[in-house]
Amino acid sequence: MKIAVLGTGMVGQALAGRLSELGHDVVVGTRDPASTLAKEEYAAWAAEHPAVRLATFAGAGAPAPVVVNATSGVVTLDVLAQAAGAGGGSGLGGKIVMDISNGLDFSRGFPPLVTAPQDDSIAEQVQRAHPDALVVKTLNTLTAELMAHPEVLADPGTVFVSGDDPDAKHVVTGLLHQLGHTDVLDLGDITTARGVEWMMPAWLRVMGAVGTASFNWKVVRG
Amino acid sequence: MKIAVLGTGMVGQALAGRLSELGHDVVVGTRDPASTLAKEEYAAWAAEHPAVRLATFAGAGAPAPVVVNATSGVVTLDVLAQAAGAGGGSGLGGKIVMDISNGLDFSRGFPPLVTAPQDDSIAEQVQRAHPDALVVKTLNTLTAELMAHPEVLADPGTVFVSGDDPDAKHVVTGLLHQLGHTDVLDLGDITTARGVEWMMPAWLRVMGAVGTASFNWKVVRG
Repeated sequence: MKIAVLGTGMVGQALAGRLSELGHDVVVGTRDPASTLAKEEYAAWAAEHPAVRLATFAGAGAPAPVVVNATSGVVTLDVLAQAAGAGGGSGLGGKIVMDISNGLDFSRGFPPLVTAPQDDSIAEQVQRAHPDALVVKTLNTLTAELMAHPEVLADPGTVFVSGDDPDAKHVVTGLLHQLGHTDVLDLGDITTARGVEWMMPAWLRVMGAVGTASFNWKVVRG
Repeated sequence: MKIAVLGTGMVGQALAGRLSELGHDVVVGTRDPASTLAKEEYAAWAAEHPAVRLATFAGAGAPAPVVVNATSGVVTLDVLAQAAGAGGGSGLGGKIVMDISNGLDFSRGFPPLVTAPQDDSIAEQVQRAHPDALVVKTLNTLTAELMAHPEVLADPGTVFVSGDDPDAKHVVTGLLHQLGHTDVLDLGDITTARGVEWMMPAWLRVMGAVGTASFNWKVVRG
């Protein structure tokens, strides 16, 4: 499947690399490909992943039915506007937008604050900005390495999907299974993204307590 | 150990009943004992738990080194002021206050909103109101029955403690172990209560998705 991964940071690299290994046709989107390739760290990663191409946000998004938003929540709306192209929201019409962002404000130090008010979420902001896109919130509740390699944990734990379109959630759930996520919990419509976006304050404190980001939440039931 | 459980709702009953079964000397605190006993549901519960006495908030709290706040977060400060007695905060001085409240605003419907701003928490409000009390946030991340009977789940999951006093957290951790909680994670100082209080939005969505409140979070590691 053609997949555009927007963002060249840890999350983008982890998912683009793994999805490519799984046989998907992956293009990474960035603001300015030339300046991204000029960064030693990205160039080294790209050399190890020759099948993954690099393009502008618009160039990456245009041909792909699945667009992964692996950017920070604070730039997400801007990046997705670029990915949608000159036509505005219409450029993402009918596409599955897998939103794995967290909006965090570090201006008051650590731990950061959540940027969206509790009666909204980044995922809903994306859905409102691109009404014809099929937005699915997922994977924002664990660290980049575990998104792509849940098998690092003896028990991979639970990941969540939130979105208004059942078929889009079905496709995303399939991708999550391919990545090795065995427990995918459908929380409901896109407003349930508020729940998972507000897990970040607890995630940050747990990271502090266990001394590593290599942990996940698991919903244990009867 | 003498334990005061403030609150006669599901959480208060579940914990008071179980702590009494475990051999603790439990007094339940309420605003007006006569009107609480006049409620058929409470009277029936009290008849099944003859060892558990009922007193006013002040009467329950005065002799007990451990005070469990099992009231809603929206009345917690008022209840603890009553439990502290006429002397104000001094009445809880040196006592361990196990705060298991969540502050939820249902005025805009379901799911409710969290009342404390994200740079504060009910637990910190309690600590500020009673500077000499040893406040420990815990057990607010799971349903009442599972607080008292974690063995209902094949895997009981993780519970958390947050507080400034290591000895108080040690005592609370001991009580949690007695209740059957095998994985107790110390998140750090009282400000880490912000993390667990903000797990409620996700908890509510998970409850909706799995169709039961009988689940818990587990932190899965390496």
